[in-house]
Amino acid sequence: MVQYNPPIRDYNFLLHEVFNVIEMNQRLGYEGFDRDTIDMMIEEWADLMQTTWLPSNVDGDRIGSTFTNGKVTTPPSFKTAWNAAVEGGWFATVAKAEHGGLEAPLFLRNAMDEFAISSNMALSTIGALSLGVYELISEHAEQKLIDMYAEKVALGEWCGTMCLTEPHAGTDLGIINSKAEPQNDGSYKISGTKIFITFAEHDLSENIVHMVLAKLPNSPEGTHGISLFLVPKYLSQDGLLSEQVNGVTCSGIEEKMGLHGSPTCVLNFDESIGWLVGEENCGMKLMFEMMNRERLATGMMGIGLGEVAYQNSLQWCKERRQGRDLKGTKDMHESADSILVHPDVRRMLLKVKANNEGSRALGTWVGTLLDELKRGDSEGKVHAEALVSLLTPIIKAHATDLGCESTSLCIQVMGGAGYCTEYGVEQFYRDVRIAPIWEGTNGIQSLDLAGRKITKNFGKNLRHLMWPLLEFIEENRDDARMSKYTKPLYQNVKGLQQLTLLMISEGMGNPHFLAGSATDYTSYFGNTMLAFMWAKMAGVCIEAQKAGVQDDFYKAKLALADVFFNEILPDNIGLAAKVQSGHKHLMEYPEVLL
Amino acid sequence: MVQYNPPIRDYNFLLHEVFNVIEMNQRLGYEGFDRDTIDMMIEEWADLMQTTWLPSNVDGDRIGSTFTNGKVTTPPSFKTAWNAAVEGGWFATVAKAEHGGLEAPLFLRNAMDEFAISSNMALSTIGALSLGVYELISEHAEQKLIDMYAEKVALGEWCGTMCLTEPHAGTDLGIINSKAEPQNDGSYKISGTKIFITFAEHDLSENIVHMVLAKLPNSPEGTHGISLFLVPKYLSQDGLLSEQVNGVTCSGIEEKMGLHGSPTCVLNFDESIGWLVGEENCGMKLMFEMMNRERLATGMMGIGLGEVAYQNSLQWCKERRQGRDLKGTKDMHESADSILVHPDVRRMLLKVKANNEGSRALGTWVGTLLDELKRGDSEGKVHAEALVSLLTPIIKAHATDLGCESTSLCIQVMGGAGYCTEYGVEQFYRDVRIAPIWEGTNGIQSLDLAGRKITKNFGKNLRHLMWPLLEFIEENRDDARMSKYTKPLYQNVKGLQQLTLLMISEGMGNPHFLAGSATDYTSYFGNTMLAFMWAKMAGVCIEAQKAGVQDDFYKAKLALADVFFNEILPDNIGLAAKVQSGHKHLMEYPEVLL
Repeated sequence: MVQYNPPIRDYNFLLHEVFNVIEMNQRLGYEGFDRDTIDMMIEEWADLMQTTWLPSNVDGDRIGSTFTNGKVTTPPSFKTAWNAAVEGGWFATVAKAEHGGLEAPLFLRNAMDEFAISSNMALSTIGALSLGVYELISEHAEQKLIDMYAEKVALGEWCGTMCLTEPHAGTDLGIINSKAEPQNDGSYKISGTKIFITFAEHDLSENIVHMVLAKLPNSPEGTHGISLFLVPKYLSQDGLLSEQVNGVTCSGIEEKMGLHGSPTCVLNFDESIGWLVGEENCGMKLMFEMMNRERLATGMMGIGLGEVAYQNSLQWCKERRQGRDLKGTKDMHESADSILVHPDVRRMLLKVKANNEGSRALGTWVGTLLDELKRGDSEGKVHAEALVSLLTPIIKAHATDLGCESTSLCIQVMGGAGYCTEYGVEQFYRDVRIAPIWEGTNGIQSLDLAGRKITKNFGKNLRHLMWPLLEFIEENRDDARMSKYTKPLYQNVKGLQQLTLLMISEGMGNPHFLAGSATDYTSYFGNTMLAFMWAKMAGVCIEAQKAGVQDDFYKAKLALADVFFNEILPDNIGLAAKVQSGHKHLMEYPEVLL
Repeated sequence: MVQYNPPIRDYNFLLHEVFNVIEMNQRLGYEGFDRDTIDMMIEEWADLMQTTWLPSNVDGDRIGSTFTNGKVTTPPSFKTAWNAAVEGGWFATVAKAEHGGLEAPLFLRNAMDEFAISSNMALSTIGALSLGVYELISEHAEQKLIDMYAEKVALGEWCGTMCLTEPHAGTDLGIINSKAEPQNDGSYKISGTKIFITFAEHDLSENIVHMVLAKLPNSPEGTHGISLFLVPKYLSQDGLLSEQVNGVTCSGIEEKMGLHGSPTCVLNFDESIGWLVGEENCGMKLMFEMMNRERLATGMMGIGLGEVAYQNSLQWCKERRQGRDLKGTKDMHESADSILVHPDVRRMLLKVKANNEGSRALGTWVGTLLDELKRGDSEGKVHAEALVSLLTPIIKAHATDLGCESTSLCIQVMGGAGYCTEYGVEQFYRDVRIAPIWEGTNGIQSLDLAGRKITKNFGKNLRHLMWPLLEFIEENRDDARMSKYTKPLYQNVKGLQQLTLLMISEGMGNPHFLAGSATDYTSYFGNTMLAFMWAKMAGVCIEAQKAGVQDDFYKAKLALADVFFNEILPDNIGLAAKVQSGHKHLMEYPEVLL
């Protein structure tokens, strides 16, 4: 039986002690969200996830969502779980008040996402998608569409999807074939086939609102000729749903390695009635706006599954006895010592824990930056935009890579039990494997970072990152206890600067250099950002201890910071060498001999 | 539909050009195995695997082996596949002539193992186990048992198992509970419960021969009190099988993440009649003798699944078009270029290919060393024993870690298709994940290497490795084309020596240092061995080219060597730093705060 205790204490620490969100809330007009409110919401959501979503997770894997005659049926416990969250009004947390929402800060939703993912990643996907659809509608659709769809989608009463991929067009959306024919009444008839559409058909809500990329007649070639359309499964009038499906049919769902609860649909649009959202030929731009949140949410999948895998693996390890402490028997009265005495077992568990907690800090930081971006003053917005733009591909790619590594280590530490379905950890290993692929593969994230984000506006984004980073190092340089963190952090920041210059200068003359080194560069960047987070967290803990606060939490955090700096950050040395090695060996290999 | 072309050309290269096995065969009394014979056997086996084993692989995953009323049923196509190999006499390849075998060299069986694993890993496990059981019987059992069991098991007519693990005792076999009561007729009554027993019950053969670890009355505590027993499922007399099962019952099979075709059984022995194999209380020693081959076979799983995943992933990539070459459109007539133009796609594929081929070379080397160990003169045996003892934990741990990484990259390069069951690659990702756990987890392999193998006999093993390694470097130092390989190889060999000294000196005073650094040390060692293999292979290719042989195979190998030295070997720099960082951060983390 899988267990999960949402990391509430860690979020309290991050939100209040590391990122001072209450000060930010007051500054950004989130005054209603004082510490008590934030903490209460987190606790209530955590409770809801534990009691309703977690128990249905295994049904998602074993029963799965099934397809019969064009209909998708989710496991019965999914409906209970989903309804519990809808009825509590939870999905509208960050929506506008006029759409039934609480207008809560976005970082809160981000924390909530992690608990949802850990409890039931398959079900969490539909919530994340629907929020994205809500944001597209409420920000960019005509008032008529807002009136018809925004509140329903905000509350989770109707669900939403993103319809991008086609059989021949995934990463390269510029070549999609779906068409939109303008009608006299201002609507469009949409036709085409979309694949890999998450929850495009299901029985959790009475209507489904699809956001579809399609091409208008005579639109330009490539990504500049793509428009965004809202296409509902059922049309509605005066609040009543049509009985006829709007030409949208699901012709099958994929069999997948994991995430069986989340149906991955083939969706056909046959002259389906839809409406333009945003301007003509600006569909990609809108999708990318929405991407920031979706990519952060995907990054959180690496953290959420890393966390729940860790908890279950640790629980197993605590009960397992094998062998003796190499320095001498620990438990004379038992036939063997706890496996937690073995350095290699600790190495695996602590590595997972350090990557989870470091990534969580980074995700939380990005969450607060999304609030700055949404509500900050003009200077704050510029700063936040630069950082979000830089950190989004990093949290997406790095945290999901780490999620795969972490779930693997959690299997390994359990030996044969880790491989068996009974203990639940293997499901997390299978489920999380989609995260490095979703929302732009991690290779695409790396190209986005290395090819766009670091060079844009003459390196503006990087300046916005380096400034607080170097200031932090400077401020803590002379603190005796901090120097063991700030010193390697500084070395890695310097290394990052050098690699960035190399990428830019080599990339100028040869885009293959840049593209061939982008993945290792992103990993280097990611590790450096986690080092920043760990140093920052360590600083808070040391200050608290200096102030005389006795709390084992701080002791554990500091010990874990040591793990990060000794066990994980040194990988950057090898990564740097690989970035420097360039791309020639990749491009010179004869294609026919692959 | 999964495709697989056994890497025959690569084995021809390794066996004949790199390791000169024909010269070895003549020296070791394998004269019958000339080049034609070896090549023909490899080709025939490859054909058999492609035509009979590969088609049943997907049945193993989808239908799986099922358990009902104490019986395990394998998929129908497994029986066809298994029988095809048995009827061809293939399993007896390396067995003694008196048991129906061909007395072929062991390296041949090793190559055959890879093809079997790639074609159907689930089915391959029973072959590997049965061979191990045959070797235990033929080398260590009394003549009576040899007469009854050796030939049957050698031919695969009866299958074999290894029964080690118990619910509370996996890595730590010293605490097993299974008992053996001596009977007046020289037999024993065995009682106990074993878990995680591969193919302990099935319908592929009429009898199953279990090799069981159990304790005699009043035996010493720990691993020195364990004996090995042969316990058949059915007793037999004068060639006739008893109708009564010998008190051996299977009470269930595990649900697992992958390898569904290979039943993982709970096996109960209830006063089952068995016979001692080897001497009393020497069971662990015998098991460890057998381990060399089993661990090599497990290492080959990483290579075999990495290879078949690569081939299928590559095939998909060849047909996939997305985006344009960053240096300018390649195919004007198509809406997008082949994804093979993208450096990051090449990085992923080439990394897999370089690790597969490097590991295959290492596995082949170890295979030939097993022959030297078995038949060499006394000097050759000493040399081979030292190398096998050192390289076995490396090939087991490193090649299986790489197998997990490779199958993951093969999924990643395919995007969403990689995650879908239809394309077959996700099965390899799930199947191979058991390999780092089997036959002693990779953590245990690392402890074996770092805690035993490098220090034994004042570092004798290492001297036997360093001598040919440094000699090779010395011989090739002045070759202009070789220096780009020998230079980094030399650096890494020097690095390995330094890390080894550090491990030994720190480990002397503190076993936790050694145990905490063992995994990273093993990875460093593994990468260095692959660098040796790549330099060795490159040397052969350069010589061939110098001799005027025109063959794209050499061109590809040399290009891939460049990939290895630029894209993989630099990881060692980070690994070295982590070995040096020691263990304190691991042991100082407070256990209650995990």
